[in-house]
Parts: sequence; structure tokens; C-alpha cells
Amino acid sequence: MNRNILSGMRPTGPLHIGHLFGALANWKKLQDEGYNCFYMIADYHALSTEYASMGNVKNYAEEVAMDFIAAGLNPEKSTIFVQSMVPEHAELHLIFSMIVPTPWLERNPVYKEQKKQLIAKDLNTYGFLGYPVLQAADILLYKAGYVPIGIDQAPHVELTREIAKRFNYLYGETFPVPEVLLTETPKIPGTDNRKMSKSYNNCIYLKDTPEIIREKTGKMFTDPKRIYKKDPGHPKTCPVFTYQKLFNAGRAGEIERDCRGAVIGCTECKKELGEMLALYLKDIRDKRHALAKDRKALWNILNTGAEKARKTALATMKEARIKTGLKYG
Amino acid sequence: MNRNILSGMRPTGPLHIGHLFGALANWKKLQDEGYNCFYMIADYHALSTEYASMGNVKNYAEEVAMDFIAAGLNPEKSTIFVQSMVPEHAELHLIFSMIVPTPWLERNPVYKEQKKQLIAKDLNTYGFLGYPVLQAADILLYKAGYVPIGIDQAPHVELTREIAKRFNYLYGETFPVPEVLLTETPKIPGTDNRKMSKSYNNCIYLKDTPEIIREKTGKMFTDPKRIYKKDPGHPKTCPVFTYQKLFNAGRAGEIERDCRGAVIGCTECKKELGEMLALYLKDIRDKRHALAKDRKALWNILNTGAEKARKTALATMKEARIKTGLKYG
Repeated sequence: MNRNILSGMRPTGPLHIGHLFGALANWKKLQDEGYNCFYMIADYHALSTEYASMGNVKNYAEEVAMDFIAAGLNPEKSTIFVQSMVPEHAELHLIFSMIVPTPWLERNPVYKEQKKQLIAKDLNTYGFLGYPVLQAADILLYKAGYVPIGIDQAPHVELTREIAKRFNYLYGETFPVPEVLLTETPKIPGTDNRKMSKSYNNCIYLKDTPEIIREKTGKMFTDPKRIYKKDPGHPKTCPVFTYQKLFNAGRAGEIERDCRGAVIGCTECKKELGEMLALYLKDIRDKRHALAKDRKALWNILNTGAEKARKTALATMKEARIKTGLKYG
Repeated sequence: MNRNILSGMRPTGPLHIGHLFGALANWKKLQDEGYNCFYMIADYHALSTEYASMGNVKNYAEEVAMDFIAAGLNPEKSTIFVQSMVPEHAELHLIFSMIVPTPWLERNPVYKEQKKQLIAKDLNTYGFLGYPVLQAADILLYKAGYVPIGIDQAPHVELTREIAKRFNYLYGETFPVPEVLLTETPKIPGTDNRKMSKSYNNCIYLKDTPEIIREKTGKMFTDPKRIYKKDPGHPKTCPVFTYQKLFNAGRAGEIERDCRGAVIGCTECKKELGEMLALYLKDIRDKRHALAKDRKALWNILNTGAEKARKTALATMKEARIKTGLKYG
């Protein structure tokens, strides 16, 4: 299998530490292992859920690009680009749409689940039903052999595999059937112990200043059974301790012991976490701060990325057109 | 309302006299009345029903282009182009897909009807469900104020109008809400008195030679109640007489009388029709014959058409991107 990789994120806001551990750290690793990585800012996909409030998409695309690079994605090594700046995504999507049976999409468990959750956003649209078709176009446009994802995204790649096979069956061998690269990642809860999500207002963003981090960690949800400092704590169910293990690993053992032993109090524990988290994110934050100062340079990077992506995309589209017959002159 | 017009035909074979009376004659009239006409060879739409047998699409696109021009569409006046050579159709289609509620498409009566008829072709695809979205992109990409169609196509334009309104509502006034230009056309039955259709093998093609026309008219279905020449005929229900009225109008009154009076026999009547039909189509056939000799010149016309179409398409896409926010740099 070839070593091309495609993954992406929707520009719906700045990225948080959940993204860092859930995806970006792994993406950087794959990049540094020499995979040919295409990392996409998926603005067309943002449209599929945010069509009614797209006013910030440019700003969000910039945020995501800065987060990508600050977290270690290197534009010299990886192709970082905005999806809609490579219009071939729309072309391959349209061709795929003609060969994908509607029931494949209606049966998609992620679609069923998200539709239930996002009922307020009126997501009963043609494009939302078809977003796995767009994802297939995203992946196959770069003939990615691997797609690094979390387990909940696996059904999408399954559909991409089916679409690749169906195209190959109808028009002859054209696309690789990509493999899932499952990422084992630690689950990071939000500061309120729910799923970390912009809409819950419980995120630690990569761009947060030390002041903001201290404020957010200071207000974190802790073990509800521990009312007084003299009560013994239960670190296993405390999100602060989950954070300590990730951002203050060297001290986690002692903290666990002292929490259970009622030696360290929650306020103190959260204060230490705030300092360590701010320190952990310092390099990313500094790099991001530098990037934020020069938007023109940022767009130079994204323009170069789009040009680079487009070279591969155009070659694939040419082949797809020849295979389907839509190639003239 | 602006005087832009968009209409098109799917390249699924050469055009027949049904197309001539049902569309082309009217398209030529609109062109000559000074409308700004975009006439499209809709290859993406062909993919929606013919995805499993696209081998001939280039050949069919050439056939349709030759039929267009031979029937009087003038590339100097009208923009004649192949849809997929203007990739902005796919881009606007993708954007529209995100704002179109799926039930709008599921309720489309033409979709319901065609799905029933074309069950053998396995048309339960995402793209077939969404073809009115692609039609909306086709029409609105050129900001067409008018869409000339037959009455059976009216529901599509209704959907285009709804999509234009929804886009304008979400993102601000961008697209005109196009009007239907209903074409009153004579119904031309096939040579077997069913609907004229390639799949019934009952068409008179614009490119048919006089020999083929004579052969086809000679075998035409006639009044089944008239067994012997001495039996009186019933011209009102005879497809040969329908043809006589169109292609031999000056003699139609006499023929009607002589048929009822059992003066003229079916063989004689069909023979006369064959000659008149061959004569009627002579100019088109000669022009088409000349065009067929030089495919390079034909593609020059289509390349120029695509470039011309693309100018308008790019301007519209730029505006649509600015409005939705997908415009950077």
C-alpha cells in the first residue's frame, strides 16, 4: 500500500487539547515517520453542519491552520491546505454521487446518531446525508492508502472503501482501498467532566494564555464525593487527575497517593495543574502567537499547500475522467 | 428579469425529431430573439442514469453538439458547451447540496416516476436523488432568468426556484429566481405510435439518411382499423398523419380527405411522407454531415463555448463563495 495519508478537521473554531491528543500528536508522528501527509482544513464539511452561520469560517480556518502548525505539523513536510481551495474535491464528489446507492448513506450509524444530536441545526439536508461521499472524494483524490482516525469515525472509512471498490468495479482499477490507521488516544474530558466540546464551553484551547488556563483549571469539576479537604479523594473519577497524568506525569503517582490520603486538597491540586498545563502548552502557544502576527505569511503557507494538493488532485481527476469517459479533447 | 437562458440535453445518443420540435426549434427562436443563451451538453447528468455504460459519452457529446448546430443553434450567438468542462457546476452543486432539505428531493414527482420506470438501471443512487440540485447549479451558475422547458420538467425548475430563494435567504440576495418558459410543442409519436425514445427503437434521427428515413416511414404504424385500401382511414389516430401535418403541411388537408375517403392507401401515404420528411431534414442533415467531417473544428467550437461559459460561471462562483464565506486570500 502507498504511504499517502489524508485527514482533516472542520474549521468551526480553535482547536483544544482533545484535538491535540486525539489527532494532532498522531498526525505529527506520521509526518515524522515519513508518510506523505495531506492535512486538510475541511471547510466544505463545515458548511454541512454550519451552513446557517458561516460568517467566521475564514477566521476559523486561520485558527485551525495556526493550531496545526503550532502543534508540529510542518508545511515543508506535510501538505496543509483548505479543502475548497482545491475544487477537484467537488468534482470527484459529484462523480462519486452518481454511483453511491442511497441506502449506503441512510444506514450510516454516524449519520443516524449525529442527526439525532443536531436536530436544532436542521441537518436533514442532502449534503449532510452525503457527507461520507465527500469524505470518500477527500481521501481518494489523494489516493490515500491510510486514514488515521478515531474508532468512532471507522464507518466513514468503511464507506470510502466501498466507494473505491465500486468505482474500480465499474470503471477499472483506479483507487486504492484505504486502510484505517486506528489511533489509540487517551480520552480527555472537558473541564466539567463531560465530553470536551466548544458547545459545552468546557475546552482548554491550544491558544489559551496561562491566565486563562489557570482560571479554567481553577474552576474544574472535581470529585463530588470529596467535600472537605480531610475527606479522601477518588482520583480515578476526577478529571483533574486525568489531566495530571497527561500534563504532570512525573508527579501523578504522588498526587494520586496524596489525594487518596487527603494530604493534598483540590484547590492546591488544580493550581499545580494550571501551572503544569500552561507550561506543557508553552511551545505551542508561543509558536501560535508568532504565527498569528503575520496572517499574510500564514496564507502563503496555505496557498502553497493548496497548490501542492492540487497537483495530486488534478492528476487523480484526470484519471477519474478518463475512466468514466468524461474526458474530451 | 435578465435575459439569460439555460437549457441542456444529456449526451445519451443522437437527437431525433422529437427533440427538434420539443426543444431545439424553440431554443433557436430564443437565440434569434436576442436572449443570452447557454445550451449545455449535460454529461454529468448522463452519468446519473448511464453510470454503468459511459463508454460512448464522448461520441454522444459530439453527436449532440452536431445536432445542436445543425438544427440552427449558432455558436457565435449562443454558448454551446459540455457541462463537465465547466467544473464550477460541481462546485456550486456541492454548496447547494448543503442547504437543500432531503424531503424536497424525495417529494419530487419526476424522481418518483423515473425511479419506477428505470428500475432495471439501479437508479437508487445519491446522485440520482440529487439531480435537481445539479440542475439548480446548472441554471443558477448562469443566473438564468428563464428556463425553456416542457411541462413535464416544471417541477425541476420549481426546485431551482426554491433553492435560489433559500440561498438568498441564508446568504443575501445572490441569485435570480428563474421563470419557466413553457414551450408549446406538438407531440411527435415514435414510428410505432408509442413515445419516441431511443430505447423503443422508434426514432427518426436528425442524422438519418433519406434511405433510412424511407425505410423507417415505410414501416410506420398506421390506423389498425384500416385493413384494406378500400376501408376508410382514421387520420386523427394515425401517427403517419401526425407527421404529414408537420412535414407535409401543404398537402395535409388533401391527405386527410383522401384517407377518410379511401382514395389514398397507407403505403402511398407513407411513401409521400418519407420523401417530404427527407426533404424537411435535408438542410440539417447536410450541415451535420459537413460538421461530422471535421471533429477538430467541432471541439474548437466546444472548447470556445466552455471558455465562454466558464467566464460567467467563475464570476458567479466567486460571488457564491464570498456570500457563503468560502473565499480566502
